Amino acid sequence: MNHAAIKRSVKEIAEHVRATVHGDGRIEVTGVSSIASASPGDLVFVEDEKNLRLALQSPAAAVIAGAFAAGNTASKPLILSSQPRLAFARAAQFFSASSKREPGIHPSAVVHPSARLGKDAVVGEHVVIGESVVIGEATRIGAASVIGSGVRLGRHCQLYPNVTIYPGAQLGDRVIVHAGAVLGSDGFGYVRDKDTGRYEKFPQIGRLEIEDDVEIGANTTIDRGALEVTRIARGTKIDNLVHIGHNCQIGEDVVIAAQTGFSGSIVVENNVVLGGQVGVGEHARICEGVMLGGQGGVLPKKILRGKGVAFWGTPAQPLRQYLKQLAAVARLAKK
Amino acid sequence: MNHAAIKRSVKEIAEHVRATVHGDGRIEVTGVSSIASASPGDLVFVEDEKNLRLALQSPAAAVIAGAFAAGNTASKPLILSSQPRLAFARAAQFFSASSKREPGIHPSAVVHPSARLGKDAVVGEHVVIGESVVIGEATRIGAASVIGSGVRLGRHCQLYPNVTIYPGAQLGDRVIVHAGAVLGSDGFGYVRDKDTGRYEKFPQIGRLEIEDDVEIGANTTIDRGALEVTRIARGTKIDNLVHIGHNCQIGEDVVIAAQTGFSGSIVVENNVVLGGQVGVGEHARICEGVMLGGQGGVLPKKILRGKGVAFWGTPAQPLRQYLKQLAAVARLAKK
Amino acid sequence: MNHAAIKRSVKEIAEHVRATVHGDGRIEVTGVSSIASASPGDLVFVEDEKNLRLALQSPAAAVIAGAFAAGNTASKPLILSSQPRLAFARAAQFFSASSKREPGIHPSAVVHPSARLGKDAVVGEHVVIGESVVIGEATRIGAASVIGSGVRLGRHCQLYPNVTIYPGAQLGDRVIVHAGAVLGSDGFGYVRDKDTGRYEKFPQIGRLEIEDDVEIGANTTIDRGALEVTRIARGTKIDNLVHIGHNCQIGEDVVIAAQTGFSGSIVVENNVVLGGQVGVGEHARICEGVMLGGQGGVLPKKILRGKGVAFWGTPAQPLRQYLKQLAAVARLAKK
Repeated sequence: MNHAAIKRSVKEIAEHVRATVHGDGRIEVTGVSSIASASPGDLVFVEDEKNLRLALQSPAAAVIAGAFAAGNTASKPLILSSQPRLAFARAAQFFSASSKREPGIHPSAVVHPSARLGKDAVVGEHVVIGESVVIGEATRIGAASVIGSGVRLGRHCQLYPNVTIYPGAQLGDRVIVHAGAVLGSDGFGYVRDKDTGRYEKFPQIGRLEIEDDVEIGANTTIDRGALEVTRIARGTKIDNLVHIGHNCQIGEDVVIAAQTGFSGSIVVENNVVLGGQVGVGEHARICEGVMLGGQGGVLPKKILRGKGVAFWGTPAQPLRQYLKQLAAVARLAKK
Repeated sequence: MNHAAIKRSVKEIAEHVRATVHGDGRIEVTGVSSIASASPGDLVFVEDEKNLRLALQSPAAAVIAGAFAAGNTASKPLILSSQPRLAFARAAQFFSASSKREPGIHPSAVVHPSARLGKDAVVGEHVVIGESVVIGEATRIGAASVIGSGVRLGRHCQLYPNVTIYPGAQLGDRVIVHAGAVLGSDGFGYVRDKDTGRYEKFPQIGRLEIEDDVEIGANTTIDRGALEVTRIARGTKIDNLVHIGHNCQIGEDVVIAAQTGFSGSIVVENNVVLGGQVGVGEHARICEGVMLGGQGGVLPKKILRGKGVAFWGTPAQPLRQYLKQLAAVARLAKK
Repeated sequence: MNHAAIKRSVKEIAEHVRATVHGDGRIEVTGVSSIASASPGDLVFVEDEKNLRLALQSPAAAVIAGAFAAGNTASKPLILSSQPRLAFARAAQFFSASSKREPGIHPSAVVHPSARLGKDAVVGEHVVIGESVVIGEATRIGAASVIGSGVRLGRHCQLYPNVTIYPGAQLGDRVIVHAGAVLGSDGFGYVRDKDTGRYEKFPQIGRLEIEDDVEIGANTTIDRGALEVTRIARGTKIDNLVHIGHNCQIGEDVVIAAQTGFSGSIVVENNVVLGGQVGVGEHARICEGVMLGGQGGVLPKKILRGKGVAFWGTPAQPLRQYLKQLAAVARLAKK
């Protein structure tokens, strides 16, 4: 994929990603790609010898590789890194340049006069920004997004189109919110009147706080706290169509795959990894470093514990134990 | 959480929630909160002795409590109710005052001249209102929502931003629709041409009717009927990211947690409670008062019956029976 | 359901759907409906004798029926087809006439001057159309939708309101996209820095290609490729709230029910049918003609094979085998 406007030398890239050049550092790169789709000018990356051979045969201009490639006499310049995939990810940022759009407020946007916008902020077409909103430097608000009163967005955030943020929510710096996501909506809480049998709304007036470097997928919904706060801590990555209920506390560097759902008041500690379509019951706790496989289910109030321990199934069990059960059932059915 | 603008005396609140005052009814309340986050001026609620002690030690101005607290000599005024949580929920409404926004149509909205808006209706920024739409008194339409032609909304409804309502849908009074919800979309129905193997669209031209006091979560989707009607009856509460297919008949006071999905032509009777991520196959029936646990699955045409009976698993079984099976499998795997 | 403006004779309809008339072909039809809700002027369809009797007793003007009805002396004109449901679906198109809206760009839309719109295209209220977008003849863009730069839409597409299409996505002809859908969003891909433990974004800069005659449900999300392409092939039908991750290759005439999720790089071959809430792990392959029941789960890299073979459960197994296991477990628990 070429982005003709941007050119970087192999040397510049290597310096940016803190890697070493092996070969001609003056060669210019104009984009990044996979090996299979590489065009002349592209930078690719490899993590093993086999892919290195393919990369060198491809039209790519240069290759990021692991230390294993050091002894190689390559026909293309190599950028050697102990984490080649990471180096590639960082190099790619050079060429994304995202919206080169001019800073400023599109004339079709409706911005409350009390809102404060940081330097170089971008407010897209038909955006609505409520009373007392504060938007940090270089933050970009995608078209048709609606930012409720009192919302605070940090610096260098990117909101894609059609995002809704309810009043009072707070986002840190470099938060990415994909299209259609809803942040700070009312939680699902009712009180049943014993006399009439009807449900009445329990107050959903708490806050939503999202820390730095969080990414939130398309059409994901995160509810505000009922009376307290829902919090998503630094660096957590949330895929599409995820639901996070009121009062949840999601830790740092948590990975949550698509369509996973959390009911209320759940604690997820740091470095947890959750597969897709996982369901977690209210007041459960998923401790530091736990991994839970796709479609797994955690019962209300349950605690999953064990750094690096994998769980699976509903109700979630240590993977080993669950696989034994699956095998036992398979044998039983064959009898 | 303080809302400085609003003040109510303990006596006023007690009258509003039909409870009795124990202590000084003249003390003023300015908001509601949890015990843990109470500020001076806040009203909190308790359902047991232990929390009563905590509440009395907190900075809260007043406490709603159950009858158990009647004998107490408390340092703060008490509001005594047989349903303290319910009384608290009702008291909170005093202080929410929701959008204090002026009634009227924002100049950026596009409203078809044939649409009729009730007194005190609010039409937000960039809203689109189609031909012959009727909007009841004091109903509020959030920014960037799109209301198709022929839609009828009752009185005192609240639509949050970015909601889409397809042509012809009808909503009752006091319906709440959260951001990003889609109401009245085409159902998922096709006919396969035996000659070509291609799917052709079966007509999805029926209606959607949503009765009074229904609440619909963020990014939830409810399809119109194919030829008939999809109906959500009075008082039913639907969480985020729920899917309800064409021709479903959902009863009164049903509770549907997040990410649950209904395919077509399902009947859910009154007072059913469904956990999150439940899946229900077409033409199934879930009878009055059934409870179904999270991630449970109901096969097409299946009937779940039993007031107050809990079901779980896929295919859904009475909870007791299902737990026995889980236990039997666990024992088997240990052999 | 009457659409008074449109009238077609039984003969005209029969010609359109390539069926034969039995009875008076001059009778006029004004709409389609189910038997239960038929009004005078409506066309209904039947697939068996019992429903034929009901249809003839109803107020409907005419009946589409299978060959079985040929010998009948009916009181209403019959349209006889070997595929009566299909004939009915096609007849219904006469009366939908969808938006009779005038072609053109609503003055509230923001259309980049470099965008090219085909003849009879409709651009709704508050739509945003980016740089270099190409929109085919008679394609209709619903209100408040946002079409990113470089997007290409074919002819006779219908986008409902509040749709977001990220830059660069390509859609074929006659594609239907329901409200709130997000097409071309970033995939969920990160690289963890071994030194800091933090996740960094892997480039999500690939393409999304959607071929002719695809229908996409409300609030569904389809991610672009990471470096390559995500592709949805001709004729595939996708329900509401479905998630399709980066680099997936979905074949022709695939049916995907609501809330199903695909993580990355999955191949689904032609004519696959997937129930609701199915989950598929990365790099899995679902081969031609496989059927997978609701809530089924496919492990990463797994291959499901067998034309017309039904699978169910997590991990997905041939239905027969899975039912045996369920039965074995039920017996075991009764011991």
